[in-house]
Amino acid sequence: MLDDGVHKLVEARETEPMLRNGLRYMQTHTPKEWSDREAFKATASRASAEIVGHFRESKRRIVMIGSRRVRDGNTILTHCHSSAVTETLIEAHMQGKRFRVIQTETRPKYQGRITARELVEAGIDTTMIVDSAARHYMKEIDFVVVGSDAITSEGNVINKIGTSQVALAANEARVPFYVVSTLLKFDPVTIHGEYEAIEERETGEIWENPPEGLKIRNPAFDVTRRDYIHGIITEEGIISPHSILEAVHRHYPWILG
Amino acid sequence: MLDDGVHKLVEARETEPMLRNGLRYMQTHTPKEWSDREAFKATASRASAEIVGHFRESKRRIVMIGSRRVRDGNTILTHCHSSAVTETLIEAHMQGKRFRVIQTETRPKYQGRITARELVEAGIDTTMIVDSAARHYMKEIDFVVVGSDAITSEGNVINKIGTSQVALAANEARVPFYVVSTLLKFDPVTIHGEYEAIEERETGEIWENPPEGLKIRNPAFDVTRRDYIHGIITEEGIISPHSILEAVHRHYPWILG
Amino acid sequence: MLDDGVHKLVEARETEPMLRNGLRYMQTHTPKEWSDREAFKATASRASAEIVGHFRESKRRIVMIGSRRVRDGNTILTHCHSSAVTETLIEAHMQGKRFRVIQTETRPKYQGRITARELVEAGIDTTMIVDSAARHYMKEIDFVVVGSDAITSEGNVINKIGTSQVALAANEARVPFYVVSTLLKFDPVTIHGEYEAIEERETGEIWENPPEGLKIRNPAFDVTRRDYIHGIITEEGIISPHSILEAVHRHYPWILG
Amino acid sequence: MLDDGVHKLVEARETEPMLRNGLRYMQTHTPKEWSDREAFKATASRASAEIVGHFRESKRRIVMIGSRRVRDGNTILTHCHSSAVTETLIEAHMQGKRFRVIQTETRPKYQGRITARELVEAGIDTTMIVDSAARHYMKEIDFVVVGSDAITSEGNVINKIGTSQVALAANEARVPFYVVSTLLKFDPVTIHGEYEAIEERETGEIWENPPEGLKIRNPAFDVTRRDYIHGIITEEGIISPHSILEAVHRHYPWILG
Amino acid sequence: MLDDGVHKLVEARETEPMLRNGLRYMQTHTPKEWSDREAFKATASRASAEIVGHFRESKRRIVMIGSRRVRDGNTILTHCHSSAVTETLIEAHMQGKRFRVIQTETRPKYQGRITARELVEAGIDTTMIVDSAARHYMKEIDFVVVGSDAITSEGNVINKIGTSQVALAANEARVPFYVVSTLLKFDPVTIHGEYEAIEERETGEIWENPPEGLKIRNPAFDVTRRDYIHGIITEEGIISPHSILEAVHRHYPWILG
Amino acid sequence: MLDDGVHKLVEARETEPMLRNGLRYMQTHTPKEWSDREAFKATASRASAEIVGHFRESKRRIVMIGSRRVRDGNTILTHCHSSAVTETLIEAHMQGKRFRVIQTETRPKYQGRITARELVEAGIDTTMIVDSAARHYMKEIDFVVVGSDAITSEGNVINKIGTSQVALAANEARVPFYVVSTLLKFDPVTIHGEYEAIEERETGEIWENPPEGLKIRNPAFDVTRRDYIHGIITEEGIISPHSILEAVHRHYPWILG
Repeated sequence: MLDDGVHKLVEARETEPMLRNGLRYMQTHTPKEWSDREAFKATASRASAEIVGHFRESKRRIVMIGSRRVRDGNTILTHCHSSAVTETLIEAHMQGKRFRVIQTETRPKYQGRITARELVEAGIDTTMIVDSAARHYMKEIDFVVVGSDAITSEGNVINKIGTSQVALAANEARVPFYVVSTLLKFDPVTIHGEYEAIEERETGEIWENPPEGLKIRNPAFDVTRRDYIHGIITEEGIISPHSILEAVHRHYPWILG
Repeated sequence: MLDDGVHKLVEARETEPMLRNGLRYMQTHTPKEWSDREAFKATASRASAEIVGHFRESKRRIVMIGSRRVRDGNTILTHCHSSAVTETLIEAHMQGKRFRVIQTETRPKYQGRITARELVEAGIDTTMIVDSAARHYMKEIDFVVVGSDAITSEGNVINKIGTSQVALAANEARVPFYVVSTLLKFDPVTIHGEYEAIEERETGEIWENPPEGLKIRNPAFDVTRRDYIHGIITEEGIISPHSILEAVHRHYPWILG
Repeated sequence: MLDDGVHKLVEARETEPMLRNGLRYMQTHTPKEWSDREAFKATASRASAEIVGHFRESKRRIVMIGSRRVRDGNTILTHCHSSAVTETLIEAHMQGKRFRVIQTETRPKYQGRITARELVEAGIDTTMIVDSAARHYMKEIDFVVVGSDAITSEGNVINKIGTSQVALAANEARVPFYVVSTLLKFDPVTIHGEYEAIEERETGEIWENPPEGLKIRNPAFDVTRRDYIHGIITEEGIISPHSILEAVHRHYPWILG
Repeated sequence: MLDDGVHKLVEARETEPMLRNGLRYMQTHTPKEWSDREAFKATASRASAEIVGHFRESKRRIVMIGSRRVRDGNTILTHCHSSAVTETLIEAHMQGKRFRVIQTETRPKYQGRITARELVEAGIDTTMIVDSAARHYMKEIDFVVVGSDAITSEGNVINKIGTSQVALAANEARVPFYVVSTLLKFDPVTIHGEYEAIEERETGEIWENPPEGLKIRNPAFDVTRRDYIHGIITEEGIISPHSILEAVHRHYPWILG
Repeated sequence: MLDDGVHKLVEARETEPMLRNGLRYMQTHTPKEWSDREAFKATASRASAEIVGHFRESKRRIVMIGSRRVRDGNTILTHCHSSAVTETLIEAHMQGKRFRVIQTETRPKYQGRITARELVEAGIDTTMIVDSAARHYMKEIDFVVVGSDAITSEGNVINKIGTSQVALAANEARVPFYVVSTLLKFDPVTIHGEYEAIEERETGEIWENPPEGLKIRNPAFDVTRRDYIHGIITEEGIISPHSILEAVHRHYPWILG
Repeated sequence: MLDDGVHKLVEARETEPMLRNGLRYMQTHTPKEWSDREAFKATASRASAEIVGHFRESKRRIVMIGSRRVRDGNTILTHCHSSAVTETLIEAHMQGKRFRVIQTETRPKYQGRITARELVEAGIDTTMIVDSAARHYMKEIDFVVVGSDAITSEGNVINKIGTSQVALAANEARVPFYVVSTLLKFDPVTIHGEYEAIEERETGEIWENPPEGLKIRNPAFDVTRRDYIHGIITEEGIISPHSILEAVHRHYPWILG
């Protein structure tokens, strides 16, 4: 019964391994058989609270670790909106560090505006650019930091469309590129050979009234290859993306079943 | 007198070497001294017609040459709007070739929509994507083709913001990257050490009502380095970007005067 | 006594860590001392059966995992002959996926012909090319997949001569390059500083009646560096080549004994 | 009348710009109109002798220039058979230089064997390898030298299949890669946008009795991009491939007519 | 009390994680509370002896493993002075291998002269060059080997200034680059987000009497990124730099405590 | 008679094409035969004055052109000492631009100290580093500028040992690398296949009293490949290194005579 419910939930949204991992935790920490409905609910509820706790604790650690990478005088580029990224930057700012952030607008949904609002409200010197201008400003950048939607068993990171382009431009200019992400975003199906499906969103986000006959493609995410990632800032610390599988084995073995 | 007028015109818009080259042509083909105002006007008018004629003829040739690069079954990526590019693609289509175009929307002004309309009206199979998705689709692409605002003496191309990012992604994936451009876009001041100034446009194009305190940068162009350009399709033919100076010497020596 | 026999067997063929690992398994799972010859034989025989079982089971898993990477419409390049590769492709085909394979002939022994026969018989759309043409066709390729003779502690793969050239061309064109290999092919001597010796085969394979005075070199294998390998498809799943040592620690710790 | 004959000749064999350039020379140096058949034949015959003379003279110069690049103790890799290459190497040997040559066999037609015979007969220390082993031996190589079938207006070189793979491996290892070629191999149609068609040869060269259903592709040539070519050794001297168009303008302007 | 002493010691010299790790070992292996001063001293002394023993044993293993990588006829480049490197080379020499070493002088302190003396005294064929000439000689080199001052959690190596430049030149020419280093040089603070501070030494080392107004910068170390490192030769064996964290987990878990 | 004298002069110092070009100018502008010794001397003297004049004029132009590339706020790296470089920087400084220079010391002869003195005396903010630290500081650099001893027909630049290492590090970090050089430094023998010999200087420059048995190599120059050079600042303007041959054809055809 739980399995059925879980299955539906999981299928509803693609590219969200953290949700799936949460459900997997509940499954593996809840007895398969039960007689007492109430007892079951209590157990499930406890497991649910535990995994949410793990997530919160991991985020708190990540934010502290990430904030140490920021130095006075840095210029930092970020793309899209990630609460882990904005909390990391705000934490660094509250530690008294003074730095600039360059923020892409992140078409088509303009999530960069959310990031910009949060940073400006926190008093951080923030500059917005169009997504296309990331390479143009790369030489002013000390490091790039982005969030993550999923991490594959090969060490690649799936994140908002355009992330891989920013990573490529950072790599071209020898600018370090960091991902902040809990290990709970590791996607265990990738180890078994599945590709991570890239969600396609509705085309009206790009152009509401396009000319008839025009096709529009609106992928939500792209894949950033591990070779362009200097480090993933996780609850274990800052690790090479090639080590992601080992870190998951160490911290959340139940993800790997 | 002409010199004064020319000077003002030229200063008005940056990154437009073709306009400046046109004026230079008029200057070098109009007598410095004159008594008869009417005679002067006639001479200037003739020079003006000549340079416009050179431009039209060069474009016609470029379109024919470029159209030969298109092959049945190709998928071609373009960025922003360039009449030389759309005419080239439409010419290829009218020759009976069947191919797909992937078109970026080109923030902040959405010039990609103009391109898309022109191509769709011509019956070409066209797909629009956000600028950030160029790398995501690069592996489907047979070649990239863009226009040019200016070409420097070192062989670099200045074009709409984002062009260099597309070129970088094409280079990463070994996809040929072509620029269609008349040699009249060669910028002679670059040979004398000047940087080509990159025009900054008004920030409202990016965000009309940004939160207070947010900075916005809106550069109109970026620089694509010659190493990422397979060929420039000019009135001389398809040449290496490293040969641009020689081609200008051959065709329009008065530019280098 | 077992040690002596093992030693001879192992020396007979270079670059075959799987055989050496099999023998090491037998050694570590058979008592060093024994009184009863029959009991010893039974134990050795059981260990031998176990390791063969491990290998078969790992291969079955690898084939299933690898087959999930294949998608409808893919064009896949392979080099030489590897039963793990052909079984993976045939499994994908039997799952109803329709794809093309491009196969090198693999001089000097033409093992590519064996692969081609197996694939054609299975009904897979297969095209043969000379080894030299791999780069020429690389842009049509969705991914490359090859087998492995040995994997070193640094994460490099030793496989049929020419493999590293294919990997280089794939890397140049941003085409994913996969190796299918059981972890039992990990070569533990490399961790202790030994180079993996590259077997040289007889020159008549290349030219039976060469002109007098001509030298011929016929190395059987070459080394593909880990940076060109997107993933190794193992019994653990698809992993980064940098993780090979950890996966061996997890699955076959006696190899590292 | 001459035009018709020329046309047929030219169409007969693809990728042979030198032949086409020879005919073009004859056309441009023979009157379009004539009354006296004998006079015409004499003129055409003279033009034919002239262009053959140009070719021989250019080759003689190329061989002398190329031979100066060879140094005592060098190890030089070559691919396929090119009389310009073998004559260059033999010239260097006759000058008393002592060096090694590594020669690929060059499937499917084994033209490497012709090269090997010529070099061994000349007393040069020569080693044959399969095409796939070029990268394996690259670190022993001081420079690579190959011939050319055609040079495009962008500076790319079209030569025997596999050349681009050797160039890629040389580039990876920072080994200089030279092409010896008369400027008469410049292909003027490429400047006007045409792709150089790659001839496909008969499949029996690869496998005489392939299994039914197997496809075979046998392209004769591939394209080596200018970025992998250190210099082209021409009758003008050793030049950058980017300068090819200028050198042709200087030496054979009638090619660009 | 111990904690205080340790703290002062550790702060005294930057970039010396091995010292800090040694002290950490003493801390974790000594009771926090004690009554008997003598008992405490004995315990601390024992812990100290243990960690020194670990270090000596690990170095002995590293030297043996590293020496196996050296082959007859090799030319090996090294930079600065590292006793692990010189002992490895001398061990290889004593095994009867004959090879050449090219040694940089290593400004500003000329530590390369120490290395050169040790190697020459051991009878090894040694050539000294200025630091700037490393790239010039790179094509003669079979592999580079250097020591390490610290290894970060991302797999980067901190070593004498100039090391990263040698690694870059090795990478450009496809020359393997090895680091010999005990895992005890892993720097655990890097995993928690700290940058490893680069010590700046006094400017008189560079120029004793500089002209007034001239600034001088004298960083003692630089960072070599993991992508340029083929392997780290450790007490575990030769491993990928990406695996460093795992190897530390396996051998010295108390470092990560 | 002149020819003999010239020959001796030219042979005396290697890698100095400008001297050789100067003598070549004198030869080609002085009659081969003469009766009147005085008349000859006058002619030779005039030719000598002319070529010196060409050189001075070209340098003046180069300095003006180069100075325009400097912008307020730039940080510029230079290596060794080149009067063209220091005059360019001082000219920019006198134009009121405020910028920093980072200067390598340039072992073994410390020519960087000459540069540092000149710049500090001119009031320019100058920082000295050891040669090995160039990569460490590269990310602060806006562009690199160096002089040249010779330019080859392929577009490569021969300059003080270490230049190619700086260029490599600049290229890795996408930092523009400029060479300031008169076209008179073009080396015409390279077009005919000769390698430019690299002068070896005496070993005492590196170590006065080395241990017995130690070899020392002291090459004065190295070769920077054209692909790492953004532009050569010449009397014609800033050109691609690939265009060097054309610019020499245009300005000093007698060099190629």
